[in-house]
Amino acid sequence: MKHSKKERQRLLKDKIASDPFITDESLAELFKVSVQTIRLDRLELSIPELRERMKHAAREHYDEVKALAPEEVIGEIIDLQLDKEAISILDIKEEHVFYRNDIARGHFLFAQANSLAVAIINDELALTNKASVNFMRQVKIGERVVARAVVTEAGKAKTLVEVTSKVNREVVFRGEFTMYRSRL
Amino acid sequence: MKHSKKERQRLLKDKIASDPFITDESLAELFKVSVQTIRLDRLELSIPELRERMKHAAREHYDEVKALAPEEVIGEIIDLQLDKEAISILDIKEEHVFYRNDIARGHFLFAQANSLAVAIINDELALTNKASVNFMRQVKIGERVVARAVVTEAGKAKTLVEVTSKVNREVVFRGEFTMYRSRL
Repeated sequence: MKHSKKERQRLLKDKIASDPFITDESLAELFKVSVQTIRLDRLELSIPELRERMKHAAREHYDEVKALAPEEVIGEIIDLQLDKEAISILDIKEEHVFYRNDIARGHFLFAQANSLAVAIINDELALTNKASVNFMRQVKIGERVVARAVVTEAGKAKTLVEVTSKVNREVVFRGEFTMYRSRL
Repeated sequence: MKHSKKERQRLLKDKIASDPFITDESLAELFKVSVQTIRLDRLELSIPELRERMKHAAREHYDEVKALAPEEVIGEIIDLQLDKEAISILDIKEEHVFYRNDIARGHFLFAQANSLAVAIINDELALTNKASVNFMRQVKIGERVVARAVVTEAGKAKTLVEVTSKVNREVVFRGEFTMYRSRL
């Protein structure tokens, strides 16, 4: 069902308030209008684009990565509290998918999650010891993967990091990483 | 203890016969001579370099990859029997390691193993469902990782692939991949 512009803008505002990580593409689908229309709606309502909303939603000042160089992180870190939690986003592009079917290759989802699990460690040396991962659904080119890492157990011998990656709030990947660090 | 050249060449020949995947670097260390000396020894003994030995050791004709384009495989496949077993080698270079400590990043070992687990599947569509991996020891720049994948259970709903990756016969990575395929 199509809504009037006014009605749509009201619903759009509510929707974004309740789900700040929703993409313009998903909103367009939801309201059965073009992505361009959603962009114009957002402009009129002064709602920033998703990436800006995510940065805004994240803490203004977050910790700096210690265990690796920031440019070594796969994806873009938008929030980081060392030894607590971290969030990164990865836009799936051509270089991440199989030629044949545009499905994201598993090792990129793994790399995003794994590098976030390394980045969250408050130590100059953090190495992955074990990982147990589940690929819950295929991720396609053009989708934005939001990974959230949480430290569930911190010890020198073993730091456990759980990572959940979502596309439009749907879980696409889950991983548990057992990390080694040089000190605590 | 240093050996005479003749003695060393005899031992070298035996060593390579018993461990065809040994690198020149390891041989140099073993015999306490330079890598250059080992190369000259091999030349005199007409023993081809490691990569050639590995290709030779592998079956002359092996299957073609079906589930992905050959250039999408991370590492170089040197043996492949679809739905049975496969071997690939990956030379760890600058682009695979952390700037800081020259240790290979986990996701490259994962990618080598995972793409081998995809490549082994005799189907046009093979996707990773789950993976459980262990990083047994750090791999450094300049090392050559030999991954061997074996299908331990083949079914449409679930094909299990076990991958063991070694450097100089020492296990550095172990992974079990649960793969999905479109048909059997």
